[in-house]
Amino acid sequence: MAQDKYIFTLEIAVRDYELDSEGIVNNAIYLHYLEHTRHAFVKQEGIPFGSLTREGLVPVVRRMEIDYMTPLASGDVMLSRMWLERKGARFIFHQDIFKKEDGAKVVSAVVTIVCMEKDGRINRGDELAARMARYLEDA
Amino acid sequence: MAQDKYIFTLEIAVRDYELDSEGIVNNAIYLHYLEHTRHAFVKQEGIPFGSLTREGLVPVVRRMEIDYMTPLASGDVMLSRMWLERKGARFIFHQDIFKKEDGAKVVSAVVTIVCMEKDGRINRGDELAARMARYLEDA
Amino acid sequence: MAQDKYIFTLEIAVRDYELDSEGIVNNAIYLHYLEHTRHAFVKQEGIPFGSLTREGLVPVVRRMEIDYMTPLASGDVMLSRMWLERKGARFIFHQDIFKKEDGAKVVSAVVTIVCMEKDGRINRGDELAARMARYLEDA
Amino acid sequence: MAQDKYIFTLEIAVRDYELDSEGIVNNAIYLHYLEHTRHAFVKQEGIPFGSLTREGLVPVVRRMEIDYMTPLASGDVMLSRMWLERKGARFIFHQDIFKKEDGAKVVSAVVTIVCMEKDGRINRGDELAARMARYLEDA
Repeated sequence: MAQDKYIFTLEIAVRDYELDSEGIVNNAIYLHYLEHTRHAFVKQEGIPFGSLTREGLVPVVRRMEIDYMTPLASGDVMLSRMWLERKGARFIFHQDIFKKEDGAKVVSAVVTIVCMEKDGRINRGDELAARMARYLEDA
Repeated sequence: MAQDKYIFTLEIAVRDYELDSEGIVNNAIYLHYLEHTRHAFVKQEGIPFGSLTREGLVPVVRRMEIDYMTPLASGDVMLSRMWLERKGARFIFHQDIFKKEDGAKVVSAVVTIVCMEKDGRINRGDELAARMARYLEDA
Repeated sequence: MAQDKYIFTLEIAVRDYELDSEGIVNNAIYLHYLEHTRHAFVKQEGIPFGSLTREGLVPVVRRMEIDYMTPLASGDVMLSRMWLERKGARFIFHQDIFKKEDGAKVVSAVVTIVCMEKDGRINRGDELAARMARYLEDA
Repeated sequence: MAQDKYIFTLEIAVRDYELDSEGIVNNAIYLHYLEHTRHAFVKQEGIPFGSLTREGLVPVVRRMEIDYMTPLASGDVMLSRMWLERKGARFIFHQDIFKKEDGAKVVSAVVTIVCMEKDGRINRGDELAARMARYLEDA
């Protein structure tokens, strides 16, 4: 079951300024939630976001697929969950957000990240992979 | 050629507060650019965004696929171009953003929109389609 | 001592997408933190933000003074504290944000809020004041 | 007359994602407009924002006073105008935003900027002042 694959969960509360004129969270804000979740995961693993860039490696989003199921509104709390796999140089983050109150799926996203070197070339990401080895399925 | 299909182009300048700590436009901001482009298109067609909601129809993003090719930075100007097609109740916006200076493709997105009624049911979108008939290919 | 006046404290962690190209939290983001704090306070008092607007009263910011002392960066956690007073129709929120780690003052803000009626007139705010009576000093 | 002092005007259109759940531009967004205006001014003067930071000088906002008069909504276009003066090491930007349609004043802001050196000390700002000499009144 897909749900079993989750390796990290972050609880996030909706902030009212994230609502748009429909009174629901604007679709772009979910990318913030998803990024915040990835950074919190990486930080928990002892890999602060800044240290990667000091090594000259910049993780960049290459592709994002996101399905919007249920909108979030004022007062809602979400559980942002993820698991990941590696496909060559690509790190694939599978990220789902659920409404805490009733478990409804809010968004389902597949986010492809690659590590860029300073000169713009794609890095194999072996160092990053080594640090997250226990979570990775190399596909 | 795909480029021939574009029916609308909006020029947008990067604002410095849209940059993240890497000095490039944050990935979530592109969803703002894409939404802004759709709203500008709809407005040009004489369909102000607000009027749809007054009729009780709320266009919502159901799915977004976005490929990130070239990052934008401070001072960049982009050309945000789109064409659309209809598949049943779904309006598919094909949106590409190019760097104005050199024509490099910045992002390529496919955005699926549906019209929701007040009670949460999906509307066929016939009214919206009628207003945009000359641009639509019903697939 | 001013510090004794605080009636509410909210802990907020910086999210990396809130950083600008200097690597510090953008000055506009602090207004989000301050608003989020006010809404969390009002909510704790059993006055969800939405209910005020359903009664036709919309609290709006009339004036904001904000001093920026110490910038926040990636990984920082803040304590956002406030006390309030009433001056006629105006609710004055005194809001200070401190860095949790070392107690350094980050920003100090004075935010003036008034309640608008649907017709755009300023409401005396007596209902709101009644609900927050125990915190208010009528100046 | 204060209006005569304006040395720079930028036209900015409201983007729908800048609206909050009240259907008006969120109060934090005006700080984005104001910053965008300052950067556009500095850029027009041939001082791209990035070049200052390459010299090791980072202009930072020290204090912001902002009065909110008339809210902006979907479809509105604003004229963002400014003049500036220098008080010792402080550059004081006087920034007013007007609704283009009817000239109504939207916000009125006084923004204090100082130039920080890499080591965190405040720079006198003489270089910046020299570049903007013809606009400055040294108070």
